Amino acid sequence: MAAIVREHGTGDVLMMAWMDDEALHRTLTTGRATYWSRSRQEYWVKGETSGHHQYVKAVSLDCDGDAVLVTVEQVGAACHTGNHTCFFDELPVTAPKTELPATATKTGLPVTAPTAETGTQA
Amino acid sequence: MAAIVREHGTGDVLMMAWMDDEALHRTLTTGRATYWSRSRQEYWVKGETSGHHQYVKAVSLDCDGDAVLVTVEQVGAACHTGNHTCFFDELPVTAPKTELPATATKTGLPVTAPTAETGTQA
Repeated sequence: MAAIVREHGTGDVLMMAWMDDEALHRTLTTGRATYWSRSRQEYWVKGETSGHHQYVKAVSLDCDGDAVLVTVEQVGAACHTGNHTCFFDELPVTAPKTELPATATKTGLPVTAPTAETGTQA
Repeated sequence: MAAIVREHGTGDVLMMAWMDDEALHRTLTTGRATYWSRSRQEYWVKGETSGHHQYVKAVSLDCDGDAVLVTVEQVGAACHTGNHTCFFDELPVTAPKTELPATATKTGLPVTAPTAETGTQA
């Protein structure tokens, strides 16, 4: 499953890595973020060689069980490039700026509509 | 690639879905978050049936190009369950509370250590 890593305090999304059940178990029981490397086919503890550890504050599973959100205290940079976050390459959104419907912006209430679908395609 | 969806303003991580190049292109050019359903093998625009649209504010690619962070204005609930976020199932972290090294907590500065590795396994 995908592991989305968020920094405690700032709320910044730092990186995305992969976990299997064992990596998740190790993360929960050791308090150190532990991932599964799909390319190297091995477990790795974040910071093991770099010192840039991630101390786990909370872990939440998503509604369909294919992602976890891991909230961490990040030591040093999360990204191997030295950046604070791996998501530093901003892509241009070329769409015309679309405004929210007036009711939503004004009231902050959701625009309700019938939902006939199932799964996560809401 | 994995698309991590974050709410503009609150910074809440709302959901995770999948994009291919075409879904990313559509997201950037239409300003509406568009995903690729791996199970249904089709594109879907968030909110198309539920009304819970995502107006795209920013998109960032991660350092190894296998994830994007999509910042959106979310109309209504992001999760098909009606929850604000899909990550509502908190798992117990059973590790003893580990404190950050004193230098890191006191100064907020990164603990520096040599990094000999490459890739995202920092």
